Amino acid sequence: MRVLGISGSLRPGSYNTKLLRAAACELPSGTEFVMFEDLTAVPPYSEELDGDWAPQGAVALRTVIADADAVLIATPEYNSSLPGQLKNALDWASRPFPSNVLRGKPAAVVGASTGVFGAVWAQAEVRKVLAAIGAQVRDDELPVGQAHDAFAADGSLRDPLQRQLLADVAAALVDAARASEGVEAAVV
Amino acid sequence: MRVLGISGSLRPGSYNTKLLRAAACELPSGTEFVMFEDLTAVPPYSEELDGDWAPQGAVALRTVIADADAVLIATPEYNSSLPGQLKNALDWASRPFPSNVLRGKPAAVVGASTGVFGAVWAQAEVRKVLAAIGAQVRDDELPVGQAHDAFAADGSLRDPLQRQLLADVAAALVDAARASEGVEAAVV
Repeated sequence: MRVLGISGSLRPGSYNTKLLRAAACELPSGTEFVMFEDLTAVPPYSEELDGDWAPQGAVALRTVIADADAVLIATPEYNSSLPGQLKNALDWASRPFPSNVLRGKPAAVVGASTGVFGAVWAQAEVRKVLAAIGAQVRDDELPVGQAHDAFAADGSLRDPLQRQLLADVAAALVDAARASEGVEAAVV
Repeated sequence: MRVLGISGSLRPGSYNTKLLRAAACELPSGTEFVMFEDLTAVPPYSEELDGDWAPQGAVALRTVIADADAVLIATPEYNSSLPGQLKNALDWASRPFPSNVLRGKPAAVVGASTGVFGAVWAQAEVRKVLAAIGAQVRDDELPVGQAHDAFAADGSLRDPLQRQLLADVAAALVDAARASEGVEAAVV
């Protein structure tokens, strides 16, 4: 059971990357967590570049998604929507449609911001986009506001309720992935 | 009076780039049209890279926007939303907030797709993002569906009604820019 984390922020020290690391610590035992580290290397999507000759950065993204049983995205909010580079990565992952690597893949979205709303609009847009792509999107939302004060020194969320909610999101995502595997096994 | 065109599609032969060229031909006389050609060169937004040392691709974008009196964006729709690379460019243009180059700038959005809906959801998301950035966003919407059949050999829109609507969008944008200049002149 492998969960892939994708942080929508490229900033070193990003609160969304921290949120993914906190989520990794809350995953059920026996679950491997892999962080996608190469979002910057995904080139601007162009249909002309796509196909068998797709750029390495896009192929790497598709490969790690294909190798994961579930995807957990943490997104900041830029201008009331999702970050451009995260959307660009999802655009690459969405092709070819409908046999893309996200098709039917369990996916959940969380988000952090330094404001009070915790990137709720960005999270909603990511869920909408994932649904359009054909992922098995979880309804969960986890807005971590005032993210600069949200984490303890050990990287966990300070607020016990938020920490429990993050654990719940992680557990439900893994449950969905297990159920999904069960379905596939039954079909085979 | 200068209108900057930004196409959200990087594909050579893009229908959205064609739509901008068609709009350029409908602009009132005395209006200069400049196409932004370097969307691919805008790097993934990272707060760490921003500031006085911002990358050349981002500075070039900000400069052409600052030098224009109005901005016309033509967007395709990827996965029910705007293209990632277009959003990424808007993320760069939005900083620093609130003194960014789009602040108060008249802006309009049109869109083309090979489906029947003409990228209406992407257009709506671009308008939402432009409003969050502080641009003076026009409400107009121009969905050009079945874009592969929409253009005549001379690059104009085949459908007389659509062609008129495009001319209306262009004229209203230039009117807004003239009114905006009038306000600035009165303030000076």
